[in-house]
Amino acid sequence: MYAISVKNPGEPENMEWAPAPDPVPGTGEVIIDVAAAGVNRADLHQRQGNYPPPAGASLIIGLECSGTISQLGSGVTGWEIGDRVCALLTGGGYAQRVAVPIEQLLPIPDGVGLEEAAALPEAACTVWSNVATFAKLTAGETFLVHGGGSGIGTHAIQVAKALGARVAVTAGTEEKLEACRTLGADITINYKTTDFVAALGEQTGGHGADVILDIMGSSYLDKNISALAADGRIAVLGFQGGARGELHLARLMAKRGTIHAAGLRGRPVHGESGKAAIVRDVTKHLWPMIADKAVKPVVHAYVPVTEAAAAHRLLDAPGTMGKVILTMS
Amino acid sequence: MYAISVKNPGEPENMEWAPAPDPVPGTGEVIIDVAAAGVNRADLHQRQGNYPPPAGASLIIGLECSGTISQLGSGVTGWEIGDRVCALLTGGGYAQRVAVPIEQLLPIPDGVGLEEAAALPEAACTVWSNVATFAKLTAGETFLVHGGGSGIGTHAIQVAKALGARVAVTAGTEEKLEACRTLGADITINYKTTDFVAALGEQTGGHGADVILDIMGSSYLDKNISALAADGRIAVLGFQGGARGELHLARLMAKRGTIHAAGLRGRPVHGESGKAAIVRDVTKHLWPMIADKAVKPVVHAYVPVTEAAAAHRLLDAPGTMGKVILTMS
Repeated sequence: MYAISVKNPGEPENMEWAPAPDPVPGTGEVIIDVAAAGVNRADLHQRQGNYPPPAGASLIIGLECSGTISQLGSGVTGWEIGDRVCALLTGGGYAQRVAVPIEQLLPIPDGVGLEEAAALPEAACTVWSNVATFAKLTAGETFLVHGGGSGIGTHAIQVAKALGARVAVTAGTEEKLEACRTLGADITINYKTTDFVAALGEQTGGHGADVILDIMGSSYLDKNISALAADGRIAVLGFQGGARGELHLARLMAKRGTIHAAGLRGRPVHGESGKAAIVRDVTKHLWPMIADKAVKPVVHAYVPVTEAAAAHRLLDAPGTMGKVILTMS
Repeated sequence: MYAISVKNPGEPENMEWAPAPDPVPGTGEVIIDVAAAGVNRADLHQRQGNYPPPAGASLIIGLECSGTISQLGSGVTGWEIGDRVCALLTGGGYAQRVAVPIEQLLPIPDGVGLEEAAALPEAACTVWSNVATFAKLTAGETFLVHGGGSGIGTHAIQVAKALGARVAVTAGTEEKLEACRTLGADITINYKTTDFVAALGEQTGGHGADVILDIMGSSYLDKNISALAADGRIAVLGFQGGARGELHLARLMAKRGTIHAAGLRGRPVHGESGKAAIVRDVTKHLWPMIADKAVKPVVHAYVPVTEAAAAHRLLDAPGTMGKVILTMS
């Protein structure tokens, strides 16, 4: 097969579409003929050599894909050759074929195209495991997501609305804020021109956010605590503003607040917090929201995998709204 | 009535047992004739002028008591004059009488003496709301409590054992560690002579603590994350080592960890996280553990309220194990 290879970690152009060994399905795994793969921020870090794959994972970049099952490993039940699926991967998505444990497979939701479905696994599993499973966002609560225009942000807005929450977002351009409103956001804040803590306070009668989904990390930690409602929960997904910084515990205690930080890639397959449990919950609870059109994949662009460098550059372009998808054919 | 008065915040001796106006029961409140009041660290801060009571609370020190109901406000049902109770207070415990909302009353558990019961409300409500309700400590998990010899520590050891956990403690003297073992602690670590992170790792086969109950705050934040097992939860109750310090979010994420900080005093009576809900849960789940002798009040000393200064000094004495109780008669 062909796959993206990075001989020298660094610039996007260092990615090369080159021959690679075909994956062999292990026990309980299937081979997917990949139609499309989602681009995630972690892919950019891995390309730069800053995010080594966990032990046992494929060395090929790519944490999610969609495609068609072409081979079954031993012990596989419940899935057949020819099934159209999308999947959460530990790596290997930027390739024509990838081996995946069946616990990480999801059916294509009703009404979603095969390539479009590659936009879903990371966003859906990240949003659901943080917003629903950890933070237990409930109807009537206020939800704040930073980076409302990102792949995670566009998905989180819709899921939080479907759960009945009031949704606030931050983003850096008026165009993105307008797009967030179209997706259902109730409160939209331009973080470049406005103090989001003050703006959220004003627009919620001083209540603040019951749940915050954060990608900034330490640079927003104190502000997020200020923006938090009593008994509020902060889920940290990324460190675009730094991975270490001061935590004012007394201020957290005054809110009876909770801070959680977790990713998907390093999780075990099994166990209460494992990938299998998250995939099962997403299939059960979130896929029906997609079938009902309450939640739609938001794809900024489909880019041929031979132009992967352009796709990586697109992720950081100011106008990008939603997911960037690599197509394999 | 008489009550402790602090005209000039400062030293323990500034507390004076002096005449004070009798409390008047509001709607839904009762008057307790106080038999005994527990001494808490927050009382020391309030005596020093560093912990002003919340709006509407009694200005008299004292967050828990036991005694006998002597008067019923309007709208009180379910409680009668003469009932022996203990109570979680927003203030007012260092007095002959105190007014309490009925939602903050607990019956005296079977087998517990009237004065002894004053040792229970703060420890029980704090431990249960953090260890069971927030952290959901389950059988087979490892639980670490810092300050195993404190009022909270001695209670937490027993509750965690009753929940089926493996219990680790830190304390500063061999005598306290021995007493913690008598209460059921499986792993005892002298923090003055031993690195608790390394010791816990060695004695749990590298697993660490699923749940940590912390009173140190910022000085232990990084060590607690190091000591945490995957999917672990840290509940911060106090800041004896500082209220602000560096949080390394990437290390928290590597553990998929959660940090929570909350107190009891500032909570509303009602609502999901309110005092009424905590008191109800404690009465339902923890009181039977006491009736079964799985959990016992640990009282270091009963001190007449006229010697309240000595009681406050005792809380910080190195040999104190468990609660210090003020008696009113």
